[in-house]
Amino acid sequence: MTMIPPLVDLNADLGEGFGRWRLTDDEQLLSVVTSANVACGFHAGDAPTMRRVCALAAERGVRIGAQVSYRDLAGFGRRTMDVPPDELAAEVAYQIGALEVFARAAGSRVAYVKPHGALYNRVVHDEEQAAAVVEGVRLAGGLLAVLGLPGSRLLARAAKAGLPVVSEAFADRAYTSRATLVPRGQEGAVITHPDAVVERSLSLARTGTVIAATGESVEVRARSLCLHGDTPGAAALARRVRAELEGAGVRVEAFA
Amino acid sequence: MTMIPPLVDLNADLGEGFGRWRLTDDEQLLSVVTSANVACGFHAGDAPTMRRVCALAAERGVRIGAQVSYRDLAGFGRRTMDVPPDELAAEVAYQIGALEVFARAAGSRVAYVKPHGALYNRVVHDEEQAAAVVEGVRLAGGLLAVLGLPGSRLLARAAKAGLPVVSEAFADRAYTSRATLVPRGQEGAVITHPDAVVERSLSLARTGTVIAATGESVEVRARSLCLHGDTPGAAALARRVRAELEGAGVRVEAFA
Amino acid sequence: MTMIPPLVDLNADLGEGFGRWRLTDDEQLLSVVTSANVACGFHAGDAPTMRRVCALAAERGVRIGAQVSYRDLAGFGRRTMDVPPDELAAEVAYQIGALEVFARAAGSRVAYVKPHGALYNRVVHDEEQAAAVVEGVRLAGGLLAVLGLPGSRLLARAAKAGLPVVSEAFADRAYTSRATLVPRGQEGAVITHPDAVVERSLSLARTGTVIAATGESVEVRARSLCLHGDTPGAAALARRVRAELEGAGVRVEAFA
Amino acid sequence: MTMIPPLVDLNADLGEGFGRWRLTDDEQLLSVVTSANVACGFHAGDAPTMRRVCALAAERGVRIGAQVSYRDLAGFGRRTMDVPPDELAAEVAYQIGALEVFARAAGSRVAYVKPHGALYNRVVHDEEQAAAVVEGVRLAGGLLAVLGLPGSRLLARAAKAGLPVVSEAFADRAYTSRATLVPRGQEGAVITHPDAVVERSLSLARTGTVIAATGESVEVRARSLCLHGDTPGAAALARRVRAELEGAGVRVEAFA
Repeated sequence: MTMIPPLVDLNADLGEGFGRWRLTDDEQLLSVVTSANVACGFHAGDAPTMRRVCALAAERGVRIGAQVSYRDLAGFGRRTMDVPPDELAAEVAYQIGALEVFARAAGSRVAYVKPHGALYNRVVHDEEQAAAVVEGVRLAGGLLAVLGLPGSRLLARAAKAGLPVVSEAFADRAYTSRATLVPRGQEGAVITHPDAVVERSLSLARTGTVIAATGESVEVRARSLCLHGDTPGAAALARRVRAELEGAGVRVEAFA
Repeated sequence: MTMIPPLVDLNADLGEGFGRWRLTDDEQLLSVVTSANVACGFHAGDAPTMRRVCALAAERGVRIGAQVSYRDLAGFGRRTMDVPPDELAAEVAYQIGALEVFARAAGSRVAYVKPHGALYNRVVHDEEQAAAVVEGVRLAGGLLAVLGLPGSRLLARAAKAGLPVVSEAFADRAYTSRATLVPRGQEGAVITHPDAVVERSLSLARTGTVIAATGESVEVRARSLCLHGDTPGAAALARRVRAELEGAGVRVEAFA
Repeated sequence: MTMIPPLVDLNADLGEGFGRWRLTDDEQLLSVVTSANVACGFHAGDAPTMRRVCALAAERGVRIGAQVSYRDLAGFGRRTMDVPPDELAAEVAYQIGALEVFARAAGSRVAYVKPHGALYNRVVHDEEQAAAVVEGVRLAGGLLAVLGLPGSRLLARAAKAGLPVVSEAFADRAYTSRATLVPRGQEGAVITHPDAVVERSLSLARTGTVIAATGESVEVRARSLCLHGDTPGAAALARRVRAELEGAGVRVEAFA
Repeated sequence: MTMIPPLVDLNADLGEGFGRWRLTDDEQLLSVVTSANVACGFHAGDAPTMRRVCALAAERGVRIGAQVSYRDLAGFGRRTMDVPPDELAAEVAYQIGALEVFARAAGSRVAYVKPHGALYNRVVHDEEQAAAVVEGVRLAGGLLAVLGLPGSRLLARAAKAGLPVVSEAFADRAYTSRATLVPRGQEGAVITHPDAVVERSLSLARTGTVIAATGESVEVRARSLCLHGDTPGAAALARRVRAELEGAGVRVEAFA
């Protein structure tokens, strides 16, 4: 008798170091999330880190996803690139394949793909690159799910190609009245207060709605909530979000 | 009633371009060799090239192998590196996994692994790196064969780990009286005259012997002959070698 | 009594290899051109190549320019990138500084800057990136000239900043009726017939005009002609262009 | 009437982030040290970071040095590489030139060169690479000083080439009875207790001696002390070392 989603997945970007550098508290976050977006070497993620994160994720029953990116270490994958579709498709497949080795070695497998940074934003609107990412996912085989923004070209293309699609929402990002994300450059785009993040997580998971920057409640149906792991206190906040979700009767569980 | 090997495999390094750059005549060589050592992005080999080479190899029934390397684009993998074993193992697995995607997408699979350049030379003698490469191959799973120099630590380690091993010989390299390669720096190390290369190919394939730099015949038992593809005329010479082998009754066939 | 420019500079992209890979016939082109756009490591151009090209350019009295690019080896600098202005300015300065060492060591200096590939095209229209490139040039100091397309935002910004600007034309590219380049994707965008290239070089150098794709003569005033060096026969064609220019009384000389 | 050095330089590795990643607390360390070893992009150090660190160093009167490395971002320059001498020399010069742009733009200049990581260790003993680094420094011109280990081949080669040489000591590293560093792998190689580091700094600066791991006092004459900046509490410890040195009458001052 209820429309409220009974369960939610929690995903976070992990393994986003490179060589000597670390960014995310992988160890802590892997005890909170149900899905790990593992960096595959193009914006971050050296091979030993990928191996370690996959091993830990498998051990804790966390689902492994390939966080694919433009080839841009210096820009951390945050600089939009006009990559020709055939190059982009091949680069996406390359990253998935590299990660698959470590997922398999850990007794798991790559279950989904989520674009990172500038590529994530680009495939919301860009038909050509969205199609290229989907082609890359299909090249990699195995009927991988695609995780992205509701209403994005990426999810539309993936669905059309017969791939499972998973919508995600952001508890720490402001939404417009049309249920799109307020661009990062704008004031108030990022919600930093922990209480607000917790409250919005509850609202998104229980009612599929969130209060927009303009004040009204907007519908944002999402099977997964994205938690950020690259700020101080991120792991603690993620842990609190999960505890409060579970305390409110929400089942925290990876998508099928 | 004969000990002479009835068949030989021909392998060559392929896909050794990067981005705008090309090095090997992949199209031509893939109509000659039976095993393609495909560069995986660490010393050469961008994703679109890997995809293209795998597609062509699969189409022509050429076996696909991962030509794994130190991470060194600027040095083309020719600069020995003291990579810690755990990093090296993970980097080897990463490269195999990336290639596997394109091999599978083409309806084939990665069947073997061959180290490239400085890594190839290092694992002849270096126990630690040889073990690391073998660990990387095992991480990648699938009981891949390992292609390398007879008597190398690499093949010894691979055999010990239960992996199929394949010995190779070089028709265009001089051998010492102990059946090891004359180092590249030394005079006469590389055989450039086409007739000599052909003659040595025949000798290696038919009798498992070759004339050493010091004049005597030495035994070099090898299931595979390595042909080079990065010099002008290489493809033509490779074609001639194959024709003469077949003309002499040698079966040119990939290893099992 | 004539407005016709009595002299023209010939520039070409040089040193566009990387590590093991070569693209341009630097040796041949450096006996033809008066200005060498030397790749600085971001789209091509390893340090030993930069050193070698600078030494040869200095020896032959060829002016040295920094061919600056987005950081994109895999894409050869041909993929447009949304690089934030402060990053782009710093990256441009970095490349100029690196090249300056080799120019100085050869007894010369970096005299000008020319953006490469996607960056070249982007700063024709993009005010922000044009300003960033100019800031990078100014960071590098030394009152470097800026070489680019007439009417581009880059040259406008550079002039406003007090830098010498030099316009260039392309003898092997089709022009629109508004004297802009026909985009590469379109049919007929690139002129391949040697005779046509020679004829257009003469027309551009002697009359400052060229026949547009639409048939009419359009004015393209340029102090420098860009010759391409990355195709077979490029060096021979460049040599012929220079010979015919000189035969027609045009002085081939670097800009001041 | 005293042999005690009246002054000491304090140097630290700075700007060792890359893109999104940070490692050192540059802001804090630049208020303590007198010489900044700035990463130049080969093991760490993107262009915007180099610019920022140079600006801050110049503002605070801290000397700027080029911390040159093997080209190895993934290994943070800690993996020894057999780079041919001509490549190494050119790569060293490239890095110095890139940094020089930012030093000049900040009103300062690159005053010295210090190899990083595996290259630092290699040129202690390796004649060929030591010579190559010196050649790179000379290519860059400007009579740069070379900072390194007393007794190293690097300093011997630099002195022979007429370059100023500066010896350094490590207050947080154990020394052998022959005044060489205890290799990092061995137990007790790194001194972690702050009090011990302070005490050894005082001893090195005031008496040119330090207690070896074997218990005796050994002579380690060094014009500069290297402080590490990549561990938690590093900046605070550096600040304390400087305060105690000054409290003990040691003048903390960059080398000439």
